[in-house]
Amino acid sequence: MTINEVIDQRLGAPVAPSHGKLRPLGLREVTLRPGFWQRRQDVNRANSLAHIEHWLEKAGWLPNFDGAPRRGREFSDSEIYKFLEALAWELGRRPDPALEARYQAVVARVAAAQEPDGYLNTNFGRPGQQPRYSDLEWGHELYCYGHLIQAAVARARTYGTDRLVEVAIRAADHLCDVFGPDGIASVCGHAEIEPALVELYRVTGNDRYLQQARLFVERRGNQVLDDIEFGRSYFQDDVPVKSASVFRGHAVRAMYLASGAVDVAVETGDDALLDAVTRQWRNTVARRIYITGGIGSRHQDEAFGEDFVLPPDRAYSETCAGVGSVMLAWRLLLAQGDPAYADLIERTLFNVIATSPSDDGTRFFYTNTLHQRVLGTEPPADQLVPRAASTLRAPWFSVSCCPTNLARTFAGLAAYIATCDDSGVQIHQYAASTIRVGEIALEVDTDYPASGRVAVTITESPAEPWTLTLRVPHWATEATLDGAPVSPGLLHLRRRFTPGDTVVLDLAVRPRLTAPDSRIDSVRGCAVVERGPVVYCAESVDLPPGVAVDALRLDARAEIGDVAGGVGVTCRIVEPPESPWPYGTESPDVIAAEGVPVTLRPYHDWASRGPSTMRVWLPLA
Amino acid sequence: MTINEVIDQRLGAPVAPSHGKLRPLGLREVTLRPGFWQRRQDVNRANSLAHIEHWLEKAGWLPNFDGAPRRGREFSDSEIYKFLEALAWELGRRPDPALEARYQAVVARVAAAQEPDGYLNTNFGRPGQQPRYSDLEWGHELYCYGHLIQAAVARARTYGTDRLVEVAIRAADHLCDVFGPDGIASVCGHAEIEPALVELYRVTGNDRYLQQARLFVERRGNQVLDDIEFGRSYFQDDVPVKSASVFRGHAVRAMYLASGAVDVAVETGDDALLDAVTRQWRNTVARRIYITGGIGSRHQDEAFGEDFVLPPDRAYSETCAGVGSVMLAWRLLLAQGDPAYADLIERTLFNVIATSPSDDGTRFFYTNTLHQRVLGTEPPADQLVPRAASTLRAPWFSVSCCPTNLARTFAGLAAYIATCDDSGVQIHQYAASTIRVGEIALEVDTDYPASGRVAVTITESPAEPWTLTLRVPHWATEATLDGAPVSPGLLHLRRRFTPGDTVVLDLAVRPRLTAPDSRIDSVRGCAVVERGPVVYCAESVDLPPGVAVDALRLDARAEIGDVAGGVGVTCRIVEPPESPWPYGTESPDVIAAEGVPVTLRPYHDWASRGPSTMRVWLPLA
Repeated sequence: MTINEVIDQRLGAPVAPSHGKLRPLGLREVTLRPGFWQRRQDVNRANSLAHIEHWLEKAGWLPNFDGAPRRGREFSDSEIYKFLEALAWELGRRPDPALEARYQAVVARVAAAQEPDGYLNTNFGRPGQQPRYSDLEWGHELYCYGHLIQAAVARARTYGTDRLVEVAIRAADHLCDVFGPDGIASVCGHAEIEPALVELYRVTGNDRYLQQARLFVERRGNQVLDDIEFGRSYFQDDVPVKSASVFRGHAVRAMYLASGAVDVAVETGDDALLDAVTRQWRNTVARRIYITGGIGSRHQDEAFGEDFVLPPDRAYSETCAGVGSVMLAWRLLLAQGDPAYADLIERTLFNVIATSPSDDGTRFFYTNTLHQRVLGTEPPADQLVPRAASTLRAPWFSVSCCPTNLARTFAGLAAYIATCDDSGVQIHQYAASTIRVGEIALEVDTDYPASGRVAVTITESPAEPWTLTLRVPHWATEATLDGAPVSPGLLHLRRRFTPGDTVVLDLAVRPRLTAPDSRIDSVRGCAVVERGPVVYCAESVDLPPGVAVDALRLDARAEIGDVAGGVGVTCRIVEPPESPWPYGTESPDVIAAEGVPVTLRPYHDWASRGPSTMRVWLPLA
Repeated sequence: MTINEVIDQRLGAPVAPSHGKLRPLGLREVTLRPGFWQRRQDVNRANSLAHIEHWLEKAGWLPNFDGAPRRGREFSDSEIYKFLEALAWELGRRPDPALEARYQAVVARVAAAQEPDGYLNTNFGRPGQQPRYSDLEWGHELYCYGHLIQAAVARARTYGTDRLVEVAIRAADHLCDVFGPDGIASVCGHAEIEPALVELYRVTGNDRYLQQARLFVERRGNQVLDDIEFGRSYFQDDVPVKSASVFRGHAVRAMYLASGAVDVAVETGDDALLDAVTRQWRNTVARRIYITGGIGSRHQDEAFGEDFVLPPDRAYSETCAGVGSVMLAWRLLLAQGDPAYADLIERTLFNVIATSPSDDGTRFFYTNTLHQRVLGTEPPADQLVPRAASTLRAPWFSVSCCPTNLARTFAGLAAYIATCDDSGVQIHQYAASTIRVGEIALEVDTDYPASGRVAVTITESPAEPWTLTLRVPHWATEATLDGAPVSPGLLHLRRRFTPGDTVVLDLAVRPRLTAPDSRIDSVRGCAVVERGPVVYCAESVDLPPGVAVDALRLDARAEIGDVAGGVGVTCRIVEPPESPWPYGTESPDVIAAEGVPVTLRPYHDWASRGPSTMRVWLPLA
């Protein structure tokens, strides 16, 4: 058995803690086979990477490194680094000389822009620019280092030391000099450097990076940054991580910070810190999350709302916040093993991560609303979209954090499927895949989530008994294992496996109606249709002509079942009376006596057939 | 009869159209007597004006005119002008040498800052500043002129020509040179210059100002400004005024623009333009307005949401948007006479304008939420609040448009009570007051809205018959006139009145339950308690210890009636089960079998007794 050995960096795991309940597997240990996720991973490699590179050039963000007149927002350097991270994971997954050459070319331009002392940012410190570190609230300099370092970590874990890794280490050494115990006693307005430095520590063994990350985590929350219009909670500088009870402020910032805090806690053995993040995660998931797994209900500051403020029609649910939520839940899962983390990862993957990109991987949702009231317009293919909330997927944004965040996530996606520990292998996510850990090899066959049948075949096994652990999602109350009923939670199958053995988990995927907590005011009297891990929605393109999506009232007593292309439900159509004043109307709504059949579609596919209005939550008849 | 004579500027009417169905009365024609509104007007004069002047000095916005290093946002000059407008109306209402001296001192500082060519703005064109008119989207230069001109118009209408009037005319001539038919073919990112120029035309008779206003109204909507993150709808540059169907974008901008469009339409006889604004007003009031009369449901861009997107807990309902809504409805009322406009003015006055200031007139709500979920904190008395959405009233804001907007509104408030026309006098708003028009004089006695009894006594009258018109609000379905039932709408009493005659209108003010249009998703299954024109709310300070405002479920079948200090209702208390995931909970809410009596209070008084949570819309049991 080699499954508990020191992690081999070259196996390529996106997160590699030194301690924890579960050990991650790398991209050479888990590979996707044809199915829901492999299709998206292939599109990412085949289309999205080139699309991203095209826009990084066109928008001027890559030429910034060549000394061209500065274009783009203050954080645009980070998009180049996330692109490099995606390339690194892709090259680690499957080498390709042409892709390698593109990677090398971009790295050369990045390296050339680094100052002799290690400083690297195209937006500060040059003639005519603001001085370095003169705007920690909004400047994003440490945030950009964070993504640079993450790219380098991906390269180190899939290839080894190279020029990018050297650039990142020089930048890290520089920032530790400047922001160390005797340096600038502050933090970056956007967390990200924290998990990056811990990951760099894991790669290099240099304790200095871990200590600097710890310092950043401990400083934040003590009002080290200036107050701003959105309040210090925006960048989590209102309350120290150890004292906070729930995630708040800018959702992406909150997820990256919490990820870094978990990393610091795990490496330093700081259980109080880990407990604090766990508490915040639980409270957030109980009260501040959309049914899609999306987080952030405020457009104004891309932030969490207060408890139970989850309006579908102003859901922000930023794609990057979904990425950050997966990053955090994955770290907590590795540390603690609780299947609730994998439940949320699954929900977020199927309903946020899978929703953002178009089928061909060249258009994206930045925000992921749960209710589209008016028909959108197709954003032009050759223009930056100046706002986040596009009504249809857009090719690129003035703030284009999401496409590159998706690219690096899809490239490393296989790593989230399974883990191992002393006892054996744990499968957390169900996708057609091959898993290989030491002497164990598994084939997972499934067309999940289309059906709930998951067959796990042991193709290699040591002679001794070991444990195959399978997650039964919290919604799978009718699941069976080899025909016998099983309950949601973890199934531990400890056996002496023989190659050829197959276990069949059936998650009994079928449509179900889900009601909201009564404290979510914005969806009172509504229900949503879910099917397995997938949230469904009504789209106007599927309705009879002239019927608006907002006129639907779901008949909860009528049958709900699978139909071609989706889930069939029955709705009544209402015609509210027109009134000059929308309160106290005396004439009630006219409700059609007869129900009409309506096909609901997976939310992640919405807006794929042209402009459409859409509802996830349907008022009950 | 003199009621149809050419308007005497010196009577002091805030808006003075040359044409229209109704003629406004000035501050020397209508005066308040002790009651709901006089108390607020007195507090404004006694406390708010000094409070505002203190902050304009302290924040550095007045010293900007003296050449001090520039402080404040790009539009801070406008606060000085709105302060001057408030002083002008107050001085016109009741002269006072000390107040006059303060007015003169501020005018002298403003005048000294004007450039030789008439340009006047402390934020542009000086050494180290951006050039004049280099940022029409955000620079607010024409917006500031607009408020300068409005202040001058107030002075001209209450006093005559003085230094401020001369400064404003020079600024107006300058801007007409620069933005005229052969000048910069654009508009200001924030409308306001449009109504101001028409009002200056009315004061001076100089047609150039009217033509310039017309040009600004006609240019806007043709994409003359750059696209921005919020879209061009933010500053109404998406669709020309004549083509738009509903108000959209930034609510204050929308109201000021529409007010200017009505002014242009009335003066130029452009019925198509007037019809367009009327259509937009009707569609907005039918679908985009809070029950308080508040407008703007988006924090992000202080903007209208889409139809029926009216979340109570993220209501923006900016105080200034309420002021703008009153400005617009008043202009439409003068033009067309429809009592629906006066209905909305009343609702907005009692539930937005009266809600913003504290009892002592030194703290203010910038936004007016309809649902406060968490206890707020008292903003410090001596600090600028950097954000609009204070949870308790704040003394001053980084963007402090609302206090000065309230000050000018309270100073001129009496003018909104009544109008006249060829046939007689119309009373639109009920407040203890004295109305004097030509040979007609009336005393209005009432403690409205505490009770609905309004006694109108004719104290002077010509010998011939004339018509006293009274508005019966749309909610007053049980009103009586001298004991006989009357219907909502206008009552025209054409009589030969004799001094001493009294008519008694009883609006039968009592609590009532109001349901929302079923398309307002965010308040589905809820109701609100109204009493006369006043919206009521539940506040946590009035609940039994340990009961949260969100735990209330209104028993709609129980009796609702007046109790000491408010309206008594019966609520059940719910205890939702705690759950790790807020969807699909199988255990239902625990609802107390017994109802508890709860006293609801007027919404405009909320947050007057320290931190409190609050709900206007109560879920039904």
